[in-house]
Amino acid sequence: MSKFEEKTVASKEIFSGKIINVSVDDVVLPNGQLAKRELVKHPGAVAVIALTAEQKVVVVNQFRKPLEKEIIEIPAGKLEPGEHHSVTALRELEEETGYTTDKLDYICSFYTSPGFADELLYIYFTDQLKPLEESRALDEDEFVQVLELSLEELEQLQNDQRVHDAKTVYAIQFLKLRQG
Amino acid sequence: MSKFEEKTVASKEIFSGKIINVSVDDVVLPNGQLAKRELVKHPGAVAVIALTAEQKVVVVNQFRKPLEKEIIEIPAGKLEPGEHHSVTALRELEEETGYTTDKLDYICSFYTSPGFADELLYIYFTDQLKPLEESRALDEDEFVQVLELSLEELEQLQNDQRVHDAKTVYAIQFLKLRQG
Repeated sequence: MSKFEEKTVASKEIFSGKIINVSVDDVVLPNGQLAKRELVKHPGAVAVIALTAEQKVVVVNQFRKPLEKEIIEIPAGKLEPGEHHSVTALRELEEETGYTTDKLDYICSFYTSPGFADELLYIYFTDQLKPLEESRALDEDEFVQVLELSLEELEQLQNDQRVHDAKTVYAIQFLKLRQG
Repeated sequence: MSKFEEKTVASKEIFSGKIINVSVDDVVLPNGQLAKRELVKHPGAVAVIALTAEQKVVVVNQFRKPLEKEIIEIPAGKLEPGEHHSVTALRELEEETGYTTDKLDYICSFYTSPGFADELLYIYFTDQLKPLEESRALDEDEFVQVLELSLEELEQLQNDQRVHDAKTVYAIQFLKLRQG
């Protein structure tokens, strides 16, 4: 047992949505005091760092409602219930970019916002892309523009805050470290 | 205007908490269809990559209720209303680690979970640490253990998933790139 553990003594469901659930838990702190924790449950997600034969990074430009702006991100999507993250990774690559691959390497996973949410993001990498013969449909409420950009272009876009999210910043660092 | 913009036509507040607010918005998609967006509003946060004179990284071990486990993270904390992120950065460094500094460099910012949340995380760096003469109090519901670890130790902890969050994985990559 963790010496810092916060034991739940009550949990109140606030919201059960299509993507997230929200609850407020009463917890006992290590010093015996009570506190409240606001918790967002999320199914988890997958992102794919995909390099073309020309060493371009395949990214998507999309509007993100929480930010009220478009940003350029590596392809990503949520896990479906019971789905292994490797299956999600291939599906999102195919749906969002029109590419497929026979070789998708798992790199790592990380929690995006451990202070309030349990979203775990799995990162995959491929440099073995093949165009899909038939393009696959996006989710009906998803609109994205696919771009193929050099690492240098992505870094410039990060400076301009058009690349502005954790997973794509991770991808830039990953590719810089891979270049050596 | 963005061609992918999703215009809000109605917004329903679900929850107004101490840290997060949750709403469900009805939006008009680029194709004219309606969709719902589940949105978490967060005040934003700051994290500090802090290196000692011995090139150890100052990190904190803490229990994270959303994950129901302890993880080891770089020091971080939420923005207070109206506070500039540089002020938050110094305060969190002092409160969580017992160090202070006269030189805190802003590195970058990124959204942690742009699909459902607007949390923007600002990253700072310092390698000019000085021990505080008097230690500053943590928030009353915060319990952390401070550790000073080499980059190699942090990478091993990431392999063991004891380092397991976006900002600390960012810090590891940042320090590896800095080493060259």
